[in-house]
Amino acid sequence: MILVADNLHAINPVVAEAVNALDPGPIINIVRRCVAAGARALDINSGPLPKHSRRIFSFLVETVQSVTDLPLLLDTTNPEALEAGLSAAKNRAIINGFSLEPAKLDHILPLAKTYATSIIGYLLRPDSSVPATKGECLEVAVSVYEAARAAGLENEQLIIDPIITPVLWENGIQRNRDIVEVLRMLPDLLGYRVKTIAGISNLTTGQGNKTKKRILESAYLPMLASAGLDMAMLDIFHTETVQVAKACQAIMGEKVFTWAEIG
Amino acid sequence: MILVADNLHAINPVVAEAVNALDPGPIINIVRRCVAAGARALDINSGPLPKHSRRIFSFLVETVQSVTDLPLLLDTTNPEALEAGLSAAKNRAIINGFSLEPAKLDHILPLAKTYATSIIGYLLRPDSSVPATKGECLEVAVSVYEAARAAGLENEQLIIDPIITPVLWENGIQRNRDIVEVLRMLPDLLGYRVKTIAGISNLTTGQGNKTKKRILESAYLPMLASAGLDMAMLDIFHTETVQVAKACQAIMGEKVFTWAEIG
Repeated sequence: MILVADNLHAINPVVAEAVNALDPGPIINIVRRCVAAGARALDINSGPLPKHSRRIFSFLVETVQSVTDLPLLLDTTNPEALEAGLSAAKNRAIINGFSLEPAKLDHILPLAKTYATSIIGYLLRPDSSVPATKGECLEVAVSVYEAARAAGLENEQLIIDPIITPVLWENGIQRNRDIVEVLRMLPDLLGYRVKTIAGISNLTTGQGNKTKKRILESAYLPMLASAGLDMAMLDIFHTETVQVAKACQAIMGEKVFTWAEIG
Repeated sequence: MILVADNLHAINPVVAEAVNALDPGPIINIVRRCVAAGARALDINSGPLPKHSRRIFSFLVETVQSVTDLPLLLDTTNPEALEAGLSAAKNRAIINGFSLEPAKLDHILPLAKTYATSIIGYLLRPDSSVPATKGECLEVAVSVYEAARAAGLENEQLIIDPIITPVLWENGIQRNRDIVEVLRMLPDLLGYRVKTIAGISNLTTGQGNKTKKRILESAYLPMLASAGLDMAMLDIFHTETVQVAKACQAIMGEKVFTWAEIG
């Protein structure tokens, strides 16, 4: 299970300000801390970027690459920004991502073919709402897979994201439990070893005590790991969650166990 | 998932000394702390008891019952001690437990029928060694189930314990990963909603840093919970593990989520 930092996000005022000013310093600082904290990939979430989207996204990718060669996830709904990011990326970046929403099928998904890169497919309805049941979630997974194949992608280019739901939602707990089952069922459903990713931070969106939120993350992440999750996107500065994630890697990994892998 | 404290164990010198002296004070103190820490059942492990086994086990059960009405697990290989404990128990205690070892089939298993109580069945070979593969583990589960039925027990009286292995064992990680799968497969294998228990403390037996051991417990326990584990036996004074266990209860439970369930 690869740990992807979601810390480089325009929702963070420091990032937003650095993006507005095209100031690499604060970005570089965050990236360095992410790498030191154990990130093995970085999600770059630029926000909506109504203006100068190409320039800003190129700036972000170039700035991050000035510090690290870690794999990058390019996280924007803006196809122009994405193209600029894909062009600026030294290594193949991952597009994050597409759904069955027509605009995304038309303008985002084809970029994975053009740039021969991986793309994350969200298990959401065409109107971007959340499937109501586990069964609907699996139906959506088949449609997402078929869309990726129809766009000319290989199986290995698709990474499925079941979209973790805030626990405070009315059916949040049930749905997140279903997601563990969905992850477990995907290989049988699609007939190959499907790659998967999940964003843990979404679990605790909304009000709540910070310590309790981290305990909940620490309890849910191993359930996903045990179901075979390939990439866990999380706040890499949540030390306790990262420690538990590393222990999950040791439990799920093929290496002989040593305590050096933990902590 | 019910949390069972394994703290009342003769391996603890305080317990051993209190048992030798038939001194209830130290036992009462430990039981009170277990209850306060969140135990919802208590394992009473008396050690081998070569002498005065009936008197000592009755003393233990009566002492614990003077403090709490929590369910008790009677954890001894001595059938006479077990009978004394079962007789002394105000409520039906759980026998912990039997295996395919002939002496246990002959002298322990029948007590569950006589006392109309639940009994834990270990997934171990007749010579008490650990099955080599997941497949052998499942074969042993069938034999344990058949032995329980042959002894006249109802399905509901059997609680299966897959026997967690120290991670430092040569194949420890692989085996503990298999155990998660075995727990998941038991209902299909035996054709009913099989009750299960696992002893978490065994995971980190042997040398290793205390903090790292707790992180590993915190990572493995949710995997078991997600696979449907009914009872988790653990050191109830491991606060971090207990917090994560409670979060697992919230994730796996049928209640509407509130933060009050965590921490």
